[in-house]
Order: sequence, then C-alpha cells, then structure tokens
Amino acid sequence: MIRYEYIIIVGYGRLGSLLADRLSSSGSSVVVIDQKETVFDKPALEFSGFKITGNAAELAVLRQAKIDKADCLLATTNQDNLNLMIAQVAKVVFHVPKVLARVFDPSREALYRQFGIETISPTNLSAELFLKTLLAPELG
Amino acid sequence: MIRYEYIIIVGYGRLGSLLADRLSSSGSSVVVIDQKETVFDKPALEFSGFKITGNAAELAVLRQAKIDKADCLLATTNQDNLNLMIAQVAKVVFHVPKVLARVFDPSREALYRQFGIETISPTNLSAELFLKTLLAPELG
Repeated sequence: MIRYEYIIIVGYGRLGSLLADRLSSSGSSVVVIDQKETVFDKPALEFSGFKITGNAAELAVLRQAKIDKADCLLATTNQDNLNLMIAQVAKVVFHVPKVLARVFDPSREALYRQFGIETISPTNLSAELFLKTLLAPELG
Repeated sequence: MIRYEYIIIVGYGRLGSLLADRLSSSGSSVVVIDQKETVFDKPALEFSGFKITGNAAELAVLRQAKIDKADCLLATTNQDNLNLMIAQVAKVVFHVPKVLARVFDPSREALYRQFGIETISPTNLSAELFLKTLLAPELG
C-alpha cells in the first residue's frame, strides 16, 4: 500500500539505495539526491528513478527535486548534522508532511524530536538486537 | 538473565559503550578493547569495567583480554573488515562459543555467515524500520 506518492531521499549510500529500490517498487515516485555523482554508478541496483547530483542543504537543489510536490523526505546521509539541517528545511521551509532522518548518535535524537522530525537510529536498533540475542533465554 | 559470563566487546564507540553498560549492568563480566585510548574518556557512561587500549586484531591483545575465558565476543568497531577478522580469530583460534559482529555492508553478511559468525546490520535494521514506518497502513 502506498502511503506517500512522492518521496525525496537524500543520500544514496547503502541505506538510501535500499530504500529507493523498495519504495519505488512499491509504487511511490522516488527522487534521490547525493553530492557524489559516482554513487549513482551502482549497476546492481534496480532503482531507475530520477537522480540529482547536488548538495541537498542548498534550497535550489531541493527545489530542483520538486520538494514542493513531495509528501515525504528521508534524510539518510552518513552525517547526522547534515540530516538534521535538511530535515529541518524540509519541515519548516517546504512543509513536507512526513520527514524522517537517520541519526547515528542516540544522544541527538531528543534534539531532532524537538523540531518535529522523526528519527531512526541504527545504533539503538543494533544495540537492541544485540541485547535481545544475548539476554533472551535460549530456546530449544 | 545472564547467558554469558564473560564478554569481550571490541570497539568502544556508541554501540560498544551502550552494550558494555547494559551487559555489565545485567551481571556479565565485560572487558572492552579499543585502539584509541581517548574513547574511554566518556564521563557520562556508567560502565566501570576493564578497558584495554590496543588493536584487537593482534593475538596478544586478545590474550591480554583473557579471550580463553570468554564465552562471548562482540565485534562492534566501525570497520566491517576489522570486525570480520577479529570475529574469525575469536571463532577459529580461540573457539569462543558466541561471536557476533556488526556489519554495515549488507552484501557482506553472507560471507560472515559462511564463517559461522552471526551478524547484525544497522543498515538493514534501519531500512526495515523506515519501510515499516512508510508502508504500514496509518492507524487511528
């Protein structure tokens, strides 16, 4: 089921490219932005959508991605600060309804939430799974 | 419930320090190893266990951590290759019963599993949560 028609993904690394594939296969229109043109040379990936080379912290780049049409933006670069900045701009300047950001540093999540930005922390998710594996009673 | 008595954690970054805290609070004996002495200057963290500064890819460092007594090793550095090497050494040379490694690159997980090493991928975990948030039907 598509919940978002037009999704902008900032950062086309491992996470961004996984998401672009899956979300476009699910029927959403997906545009990806990355600063490095070379990241788009991934032959194995199925995503054939629109790709923009540029710094998404610049309003012109976000406008080129037609952010005013977007109902969702995902900030998935490897830099927490950049993700925060882009997510804030998407929320405050362009009023994108759904904004999600990856945050490696768990201590920053509270800050993001103050700005109304939903966060996903790979560090916390990994810690939870490690602990689940190590602390749960052995089965069988 | 303690499942592992003596746990070595390699890498004292955000993930390693979270795990050290939680696992030692749960009653396991925990030793952490990191190459950079400065990572141990984290006043906010509660973990007061044994800390070793050194390269865990060296057998002498693992022996200093008493790896022969360990029933669990967690490779949580930021470098996939280093995690793989340390996890292999723990498994093959020291026969540590439970070895878990963080792997950022999802395409490497199959390789790790061939060596009998369990993996946890922050990238895949994050992707799953992003997709769950974006694709699930809205409640309420």
